[in-house]
Amino acid sequence: FVTFTNAQAQDPLPSWNDGPAKQAILNFVQVTTDKSSPQYVPTEQRIATFDQDGTLWTEHPIYAQVTYCLDRVPAVVKAKPELKNVEPFKTVLTGDRAAIAKLELKDLKTILAATLTGMTTEQFRADVKAWLKTARHPRFDRPYTELIYQPMLEVLKYLRAHGYKTYIVTGGGQDFVRVYAEQVYGIPPEQLVGTIGETKYGYAKDGKPILTKQPKLILNDDKGGKPEGIHMMIGRRPFASFGNTPGDQEMLEYTTAGEGARLGMLVLHDDAKREYAYGPAQGLPETKVGAFPQALYDKAQNRGWFVISMKNDWNRVYPFDK
Amino acid sequence: FVTFTNAQAQDPLPSWNDGPAKQAILNFVQVTTDKSSPQYVPTEQRIATFDQDGTLWTEHPIYAQVTYCLDRVPAVVKAKPELKNVEPFKTVLTGDRAAIAKLELKDLKTILAATLTGMTTEQFRADVKAWLKTARHPRFDRPYTELIYQPMLEVLKYLRAHGYKTYIVTGGGQDFVRVYAEQVYGIPPEQLVGTIGETKYGYAKDGKPILTKQPKLILNDDKGGKPEGIHMMIGRRPFASFGNTPGDQEMLEYTTAGEGARLGMLVLHDDAKREYAYGPAQGLPETKVGAFPQALYDKAQNRGWFVISMKNDWNRVYPFDK
Ligand SMILES: [Ca+2]
Ligand SMILES: [Ca+2]
Repeated sequence: FVTFTNAQAQDPLPSWNDGPAKQAILNFVQVTTDKSSPQYVPTEQRIATFDQDGTLWTEHPIYAQVTYCLDRVPAVVKAKPELKNVEPFKTVLTGDRAAIAKLELKDLKTILAATLTGMTTEQFRADVKAWLKTARHPRFDRPYTELIYQPMLEVLKYLRAHGYKTYIVTGGGQDFVRVYAEQVYGIPPEQLVGTIGETKYGYAKDGKPILTKQPKLILNDDKGGKPEGIHMMIGRRPFASFGNTPGDQEMLEYTTAGEGARLGMLVLHDDAKREYAYGPAQGLPETKVGAFPQALYDKAQNRGWFVISMKNDWNRVYPFDK
Repeated sequence: FVTFTNAQAQDPLPSWNDGPAKQAILNFVQVTTDKSSPQYVPTEQRIATFDQDGTLWTEHPIYAQVTYCLDRVPAVVKAKPELKNVEPFKTVLTGDRAAIAKLELKDLKTILAATLTGMTTEQFRADVKAWLKTARHPRFDRPYTELIYQPMLEVLKYLRAHGYKTYIVTGGGQDFVRVYAEQVYGIPPEQLVGTIGETKYGYAKDGKPILTKQPKLILNDDKGGKPEGIHMMIGRRPFASFGNTPGDQEMLEYTTAGEGARLGMLVLHDDAKREYAYGPAQGLPETKVGAFPQALYDKAQNRGWFVISMKNDWNRVYPFDK
């Protein structure tokens, strides 16, 4: 109770500048959690979903999980030396960034299958954990898990303080993001909807039960797959959803089509100085990673979704910024 | 705080007779939630999973969901009259119980596909809700949702009062059980692991987003599928698991293979007077629905899992029993 009083007295979103985006979040929480409000939402129905890459943490110049997969290739080849002279492994082993950047989607899929499946869930967890400790972002020279957006951490905390269950709904791998989501975002494994691969139950040599990651997709958690994954993992329509690309459009449609007060928000990366600037919406540079087209921007205006300008709405980007 | 004090002073499991099963539950909760215990489990890791049919509610003479599917056939045929003279629909429409009981598994699958898929998730929910209001159990002449086990409701409540998240992990349909689980067991949709069919995102004629149930299985939540489903939906190994058939064996193996105090329990239906008696374990009658073979009974002894005797361990079966 003391915490609640303090939260009301203080600004719960200090890294947000005053403006329509901040106001929309404050209004949404107020009208859905005030018992006297006609748009009051019972606690058990308070669900908020967040895309991860580009919404909760930095996705440029390339998704962290793709970097993980590329970094894992030497270990995979060590275990299976016959792959050494086979493409695309051969190219990745050269370390030639330009050549690696030119790999086609089918090559990338081969690398993902080789580095994300075949091991037990526990071994995978240990591998990702070890990688996160040593890997550094090429521009900021910090662990990827430090490149999280302070304003979004405040939104997560603010929503949870008002009874919302916060979920990640990411195109990234469910098992990958689970490794750090609890510590980094306060989001437990059971609130992690991601791209899901099948696991197979079996026994290790010592007879202990194991789950082995299979190269078979259960859910491609992107576009229509996001509401499909939300239905499967949560079984309730969210009241608020945050994203940053057309991959989140269906999630925002699904969320904001519900009755009562609903909140849809999209992060626009328009801050080359503190993070990155890419669109092509609003004349921002083109990109292959996390594009935000003008059509999505226009749709947001049309649907009453809020576009968050990183440059104008956030007075601080990362926790380590002063 | 008052509730907690009362719960400790009173018996939290009044429908359980004193004995090893009751003692095992009390001990488990004590050692995993007492901060001074070497087997203390942090709150966020407290997960308990429960099979449903035969573990939380009555499954004889036939699973409630199968009855639902059979009852839905006339409505399906009304919508698609061309099915009227096609098997197995023709046989179901006769209402001849003996003939229906003889239908083969492939016929049953045809009926399940026709009655559980093709509609939107919202329409399905409305159909199940309407059915639950009018359907009655053939022996007890009560709604199926009243044929729940009072002792297990007490276990669910007791575990939750001590910080455990309680999940259903059922071979039944996830969307089916979600319709009543929150009201009947206090288990919300996001804590419902079941057999899962794919949904497909799309738009209704008015443009509103809809999810349509597809005839494609994502998870067969039985045997090895139970730990696989637990990994997907929860991402943590449970500390306690309850079941009643070999379909739960892998779940109990997975749970009790974890470190620290783990609890595995199996309900044995040995009470023909108040509910049903079937094994064939311990010389109980054979059954086609929910069989508990002697091999599972022996494995339970071997593994330190507890077998709950409905007859001896429960002084009350249903909430409506005095
Ligand atoms: Ca994104
Ligand atoms: Ca069962």
